[in-house]
Amino acid sequence: MAFNIAIGPRERKSPFYDCTVEDGVTHFTVYNHMYMPVSYGDPEAEYRRLIQGVTMWDVAAERQVEITGPDAERLIRYLTPRDLKDLPIGQGYYVPICDHDGNLINDPLLLRIEEQRFWLSIADTDVLLWVRGVAFEGGFDVEACEPDVSPLAVQGPLSHDVMIPLFGEWINELKHFCFRETELDGIPVVLQRSGWSKQGGYELYLRDSDRGSELWNKVKAAGQPFGIGPGAPNYIERLESSLLSIGADTLWDSDPYEAGLDKMLNLDREDDFIGKAALRALASSGSRRKLVAIVFEGDPIEPNEHPWPIFIDRNRVGSVRSAGYSPRRKSNIGFALIDRAHQDEGTMLDIRNGQQSFLGEIVKFPIVEPGTPLPDDDWDIELI
Amino acid sequence: MAFNIAIGPRERKSPFYDCTVEDGVTHFTVYNHMYMPVSYGDPEAEYRRLIQGVTMWDVAAERQVEITGPDAERLIRYLTPRDLKDLPIGQGYYVPICDHDGNLINDPLLLRIEEQRFWLSIADTDVLLWVRGVAFEGGFDVEACEPDVSPLAVQGPLSHDVMIPLFGEWINELKHFCFRETELDGIPVVLQRSGWSKQGGYELYLRDSDRGSELWNKVKAAGQPFGIGPGAPNYIERLESSLLSIGADTLWDSDPYEAGLDKMLNLDREDDFIGKAALRALASSGSRRKLVAIVFEGDPIEPNEHPWPIFIDRNRVGSVRSAGYSPRRKSNIGFALIDRAHQDEGTMLDIRNGQQSFLGEIVKFPIVEPGTPLPDDDWDIELI
Repeated sequence: MAFNIAIGPRERKSPFYDCTVEDGVTHFTVYNHMYMPVSYGDPEAEYRRLIQGVTMWDVAAERQVEITGPDAERLIRYLTPRDLKDLPIGQGYYVPICDHDGNLINDPLLLRIEEQRFWLSIADTDVLLWVRGVAFEGGFDVEACEPDVSPLAVQGPLSHDVMIPLFGEWINELKHFCFRETELDGIPVVLQRSGWSKQGGYELYLRDSDRGSELWNKVKAAGQPFGIGPGAPNYIERLESSLLSIGADTLWDSDPYEAGLDKMLNLDREDDFIGKAALRALASSGSRRKLVAIVFEGDPIEPNEHPWPIFIDRNRVGSVRSAGYSPRRKSNIGFALIDRAHQDEGTMLDIRNGQQSFLGEIVKFPIVEPGTPLPDDDWDIELI
Repeated sequence: MAFNIAIGPRERKSPFYDCTVEDGVTHFTVYNHMYMPVSYGDPEAEYRRLIQGVTMWDVAAERQVEITGPDAERLIRYLTPRDLKDLPIGQGYYVPICDHDGNLINDPLLLRIEEQRFWLSIADTDVLLWVRGVAFEGGFDVEACEPDVSPLAVQGPLSHDVMIPLFGEWINELKHFCFRETELDGIPVVLQRSGWSKQGGYELYLRDSDRGSELWNKVKAAGQPFGIGPGAPNYIERLESSLLSIGADTLWDSDPYEAGLDKMLNLDREDDFIGKAALRALASSGSRRKLVAIVFEGDPIEPNEHPWPIFIDRNRVGSVRSAGYSPRRKSNIGFALIDRAHQDEGTMLDIRNGQQSFLGEIVKFPIVEPGTPLPDDDWDIELI
């Protein structure tokens, strides 16, 4: 189905909005009350650029929640079940955030910008409200706000070649998730080696929204020799590479075990954190459901618009949350939430989309190993 | 500009989604992580039906935050600066919700469903996270969740004629904002006399999402003799009638004085509530800005896609947040955020939209008095 999106002042526009329009954006979503591009109308080209070349994404909708003040570090540690240990400036951390019942409410990247200044680079829920509610009622001496910071992602195996002439050789030393405050011809940015793909890349956190077009155009110009083009967080690549999308793959009552974030949970920590008791109970009882990777037969599908029910022996056991065709696996693939009793690899599934039934199977994450090349043969499938 | 919206499982679909598609929805927005129809492609017809007849709207995206438990009433009173006095079951209240700094974070309707069961029928921010954060850290003994409740609005002067055959004569006794738990051929609903227009109407809070199509079709059938048709919260009518849209008319740091909610604030209350100190300080210092109603000259405009800057004597004094052409005022109209020094009625404004400059004036709320009829003359203006 194709519908228009209403454009008005209720949703906010990115500092890169004008440039994305000029570069031909065709589809938006709304993310953190902001328009976010999801397609420029040629999904195959966008996917190819990400896997084989370099692409740039307006991800300003990944808003930052900034926490400052004497209790900033104490609050950060209280907000996540992950044990953050040293928390050096310049190192990013992936931090699940749970509520007091152990529900997963967001999965941001945490950046310590200064000794007492932290950013949570958030997925699509109002973490700012959560943090402010917890901080004030919990008696933490902090300020929490949304600063003027808007990420621009440069992703793909050639992203490094684009960034070196812009920022210099020092970025060769940047380890994954590490970052540095810097500038590009006077435009203030935080440059991090990160991004929502497994193809390598960087995120430039623009710190002055008046200079969005300027930054976009500099990156675009530097990328011309490498065939850079616009794109967006890539639906197919993230399924292949097993990157979680809160809201798409999880529900409001999903817990971090269910979402496969076990390694991020340090329940033996002595200090208190939100959800500790609930998560410990879950660790011993086990989650009701599990997010699993699936492959399934049939002609290449278009990404699903709705969740699809899954059956085993005519019993409903879960639903496909996100699915599409993988050119690298050469199969339909997806993520599904499955009752715990049926979570094992190799389990066969009966997937129904209303018109058709597909034979599916649970496989291990990631569905496609990092570094897997595109097949040489031309594919002319529709990837919308 | 016309762009597509990506349809997928990350945003939730209303129980009325299939019916809205069948009835020809053309434009969506995203509201509380849910697709919400905003147009069926004929804005003039949708406006006429609301002003002169009856229309039905999928407003399932007005999600409910349900609060239950021994401290439920105490928490409700703590969440809002409004003094709620008796809080009888069956009476709704419009309740601004502020954070501890006095920022307006939502403006829900409050419904007391049972003695210890409240709903907040919310605008577009994650109030559930706010309530849960405040409740747990503040030591309130409550549960807070999003129940399976999805409002369907029936609005317009003939809405009453549609509802009587469906529910019976008792609804004649329903006062504005009052509600009752009832059912329609076994479909459980809460029926409230309310709705986001000044044309009269009802909201049916569907309590079983499996029965959305059934409810939609029953209302549609009952409305046929009165020319019912689909619509959506109406952009032009709400400007004419002065209904606030959080996010469109306000910013994250807007306070309730700025938004004109003075009458809802009872700062002399002896019991504590969130934002008390900040709002008292604001009451004495005054807000920086004020939301004002404006009219401005020129050919009928299309609704603005971006805020437009406003100048007085070449100084930037604010911005137009929401604007469009009013067939009943026969003028361009809108809401603007203006520096406090310039908030008086009659103040003349220089409004610029990038291409043009318009002479505007601050007028009093509401821009169009309730009950104002449509002009007889045909208008063939574009209202998209």
